[in-house]
This record gives sequence, structure tokens and C-alpha cells, in this order.
Amino acid sequence: MKIYGDIQSGNCYKVKLLTSLLDIDHEWIEVDILASETQTESYLTKNPNGKIPLLELDDGTFISESNAILNYLASETSLVGTCRFTVAKVLQWQFFEQYSHEPFIAVARFIAKYLGLPEDRKSEYKAKQLGGHKALKVMEEQLQCTPYLVGSELTIADISLYGYTHVADEGGFDLSEYPSIQQWIARIQANPKYIGME
Amino acid sequence: MKIYGDIQSGNCYKVKLLTSLLDIDHEWIEVDILASETQTESYLTKNPNGKIPLLELDDGTFISESNAILNYLASETSLVGTCRFTVAKVLQWQFFEQYSHEPFIAVARFIAKYLGLPEDRKSEYKAKQLGGHKALKVMEEQLQCTPYLVGSELTIADISLYGYTHVADEGGFDLSEYPSIQQWIARIQANPKYIGME
Ligand SMILES: N[C@@H](CCC(=O)N[C@@H](CS)C(=O)NCC(=O)O)C(=O)O
Ligand SMILES: N[C@@H](CCC(=O)N[C@@H](CS)C(=O)NCC(=O)O)C(=O)O
Repeated sequence: MKIYGDIQSGNCYKVKLLTSLLDIDHEWIEVDILASETQTESYLTKNPNGKIPLLELDDGTFISESNAILNYLASETSLVGTCRFTVAKVLQWQFFEQYSHEPFIAVARFIAKYLGLPEDRKSEYKAKQLGGHKALKVMEEQLQCTPYLVGSELTIADISLYGYTHVADEGGFDLSEYPSIQQWIARIQANPKYIGME
Repeated sequence: MKIYGDIQSGNCYKVKLLTSLLDIDHEWIEVDILASETQTESYLTKNPNGKIPLLELDDGTFISESNAILNYLASETSLVGTCRFTVAKVLQWQFFEQYSHEPFIAVARFIAKYLGLPEDRKSEYKAKQLGGHKALKVMEEQLQCTPYLVGSELTIADISLYGYTHVADEGGFDLSEYPSIQQWIARIQANPKYIGME
């Protein structure tokens, strides 16, 4: 199995982290987004949506979307949830991540860290702060009640949300306002098979 | 089971359509977004993210996120996919919907249909057209090859994407450029248990 990605991207790092937790053998193919390597004709035949991460199975078929890849790789483990209700809650958090978290926190981080906060994107950067803090509050509220997002055990919902949350400071988000999130980050990092982003 | 929603919202309509296809008994509770009914203290205890649709189970627990609700309601039917690979492809299309489709097509429709395309949102509306057409092209390419998004059978991936695609014209998207999408829409509407948005 091959994984196309950029380890500095939270969406790709989620997948990398899961392969480490589950000891999944794979070949990692580094793709440079800033050099538009996701927009070449040859890459677009692999993923018509032109994004990383992308999983290539040994039979030459592809799965895109970081959270779909996590579900595929973790299927038949308890990381996807253990009953109909917790499976749905895992997915709930993953869709929350893509809709209410990533577009604010990952984009603010991209503008600050990769583009160096240029003048013409400062107002967009500021606008992202509100939505990002809203998402962090929703997470904090849950993590005050349970050690992981879907209860007492780690699931791929945590891996999805961890991707950009643990580097949210690079997007201007001060996590000291969120003590339960900070404890959750420490809990994930204490896993003996944990690997960092770089 | 109770479902909180607004039938004019594509995210809510997806869930309504599935309940019809699967004959799922439920109580529909209409929530008025424009009157901020998703932001009341009492609603936020149900869904801290303050959004509809929201599913309330008979034991008083909640599941939010339209696509998580679809997965919950359709679980143990073939609509979620029939093997590890197709289950992942269904999720892939659902995450694509939330990240690369809905934020363009649903938001353009909201600005045009609900807000009446006010002057101060015209540039945002125009910017949404590019991303929306990109998403429609990705769908068209797939639907040239297979009658439904994940192969020869209807899945909840189709229901997710159908929600806003079939009203994309209300967001300024001319579907006559996409013949395979048009045929797919007709295929879904031909289902004897199909119900429309209003
Ligand atoms: N919803 C997608 C988002 C992936 C995404 O936005 N990837 C970025 C890198 S973090 C990318 O490929 N950007 C390049 C491009 O859009 O051309 C996922 O979760 O996999
Ligand atoms: N990712 C969510 C999006 C839901 C969503 O954006 N719902 C809108 C109506 S279509 C809403 O509740 N807006 C009210 C608000 O944000 O206060 C889902 O798929 O359920």
C-alpha cells in the first residue's frame, strides 16, 4: 500500500499517525503542494479532486479524504467505535472536524505558517479565529466529561481532531484557554506508538 | 426517534429523504435557523455545535452531522456499502461533500435564495462558483463511469451529494453542463419511495 502525502499537513499526518499506532506497513510518497504536485495530469488521474492524502491499495485502486482513509485502515479494530452508536459518534466528530474545525484552524495555520501572514490575507486570518475558537469550545466541553471524544477509549475521532488541534497555536489559537484539550493532547502523546508531525 | 431540522436545508433534507427510502418512523421537529433557534440555550444543550440536523434517539442521546446520521440510520443496510472498500468509498464521497461541495454550492444557494444576493456578499457568491463547478466536475467524471457514485447501486453517498446538487441551480450553477449528473438526478427521483424537498 502507498500513501501520498505531506507530513507537515495535518490531514496527511492523521493517516501517518494511525499507521504508526496500528503498525501498518506502507510506502510514503511525499507530495509537494506548494509546487502544485497535486494538480498535475498524472496526479489528477489518481485523485480527480487534486488533494492529499491519498491511499493507493495494492490492486491499484484509490481512496481519498483523510477521514475515509482512517476508517478504511482502522476498520475491524475498536478504533472505529464498538457499537452502532459509538461508530456514529466517531463519524459525527470526523464530519465536525471537516466542516467546523479544519476550515478555520488549518486555514489560519496555513496563512500564518506557510504564507507568512501576508497583508492581503490578514482579514481572512482574523475571521478564522472566531470559528476556530467555537470548535475548540465544543471539543473542550466534551473533553471535560470524557477522556477521549467518544468516551473512555481512543478512537479515530481523536486522531482526526488531534491532527490540527495540537498545532493550533501555529494558527494563532492559544490552547491554555482549554485545559481539557491540553490534557487530551498529553494523553495521546503518551501512547507508546505515538509519532510526532516531523 | 426525533429529528430536528428545516426541510429547506439540504443537510436536513438528506436525512428526511433517507427516512422515506427506508420507511423509518420518526417525529420531525421543525427548527427555524433564520430565527436563531439553533442558538438557544436549550438547543445548545442538545447540540453544542448549534446546528441542524440533529437526531434524538429514544434513550435521549443525540447524533449530529447529517452524514453521521445517515450512516447511523442506514447501518446494516446495503446503502452504507457492502464491503470494506465500498464502505470507505461511501465515506470518501461524504467527506468530499462536506469539504469540497457543500461549502461552495450550499453557501452560494443560501446567499442567493435566502439572503436575496445582497451587494455586500456578491463577491463571496462569485468566489463560490469556481469551487462549486470544480466539485460538480469531479462528480460528473465519476457518473460518466458508474450510475451511482460508488458503483451500480444507490448508497448514502448519493443521498449526501443529491441534497444540494439537485438544487444547485438556486445557487447559480447551470447543471445542463453536466449530463451525467442530470441523469443521476433523474435516476434518484425515479425511486418509488422518493420524496422531494418541499
Ligand atoms: N477533505 C480533505 C482535505 C485535504 C486537503 O485539503 N489537502 C490539502 C493539503 S492539507 C491539499 O491537498 N491541498 C492541495 C490542493 O488543494 O491542491 C481531506 O480530509 O483529506
Ligand atoms: N456539517 C453539518 C452542517 C449543518 C449545517 O450547517 N446546518 C445549518 C443549516 S443547513 C445550520 O444549522 N445553521 C445554523 C447555525 O449554524 O446556527 C451537517 O452536515 O449536518
